[in-house]
Amino acid sequence: MIKKINHVGIAVKDLDSSIEFFEKTYGASLVWRTKYEDQKIESAFLAVGEARFELTASLEPHSVIDKYIETKGEGIHHISLEVTDFDEVIKDFKAKGLRVIAEADTEDFKAAFIHPQSNFGVLTEIIQPKIGSNM
Amino acid sequence: MIKKINHVGIAVKDLDSSIEFFEKTYGASLVWRTKYEDQKIESAFLAVGEARFELTASLEPHSVIDKYIETKGEGIHHISLEVTDFDEVIKDFKAKGLRVIAEADTEDFKAAFIHPQSNFGVLTEIIQPKIGSNM
Repeated sequence: MIKKINHVGIAVKDLDSSIEFFEKTYGASLVWRTKYEDQKIESAFLAVGEARFELTASLEPHSVIDKYIETKGEGIHHISLEVTDFDEVIKDFKAKGLRVIAEADTEDFKAAFIHPQSNFGVLTEIIQPKIGSNM
Repeated sequence: MIKKINHVGIAVKDLDSSIEFFEKTYGASLVWRTKYEDQKIESAFLAVGEARFELTASLEPHSVIDKYIETKGEGIHHISLEVTDFDEVIKDFKAKGLRVIAEADTEDFKAAFIHPQSNFGVLTEIIQPKIGSNM
């Protein structure tokens, strides 16, 4: 079952200046910041009220974020929907013909993405945070 | 003060089939559907859990949604942030140099958009629903 929008993911060129912008403009607070070296990207998770944003920048050319910005420019990259029963939801989506990609099971969450081609152009993350995680 | 993400706005080619998709895939329910004849667009507001989506399609060529889809394809069009003190927030954003556009004061809500150029490519609606509205 879909519970809520967990966060909105935004592709940015420069992580430092975008974090500063979100802090100064929206009064957002940095929750965590992590490098994903294997994907050549760095993300920062910010919160303001109940709203949460994941800003992601490229660490090197040719990363997925670099390619995204090259094609579409900076902007909204994905939405993340939080579910209460990840395995059931993903099974159901696959049965309905959605293209499910990048399934991950980490210490903090289970997540997968629905490819925009089977979803009206919207890259959608399905996420179930694990107990004690700050996602 | 920013309270939460009110909804995510999605630009679609066909409103009927996208509503059906959101109902069947995500278990979303239609809250309302309205034509904005002056803007040549039609919107449908859907809810699933606490998540809400505004699907918008063009009623005629050359509408703002038609132009958006022509350039970027179907996909996320804007995010809408709900605030508790619209006038204060907008005054503050203008003082900070953000480009505030399309200010509206309707029966149901006060709203304005922050132009993506002053906001890391993200078209952001600032909205304060009025008491009794279903925004």
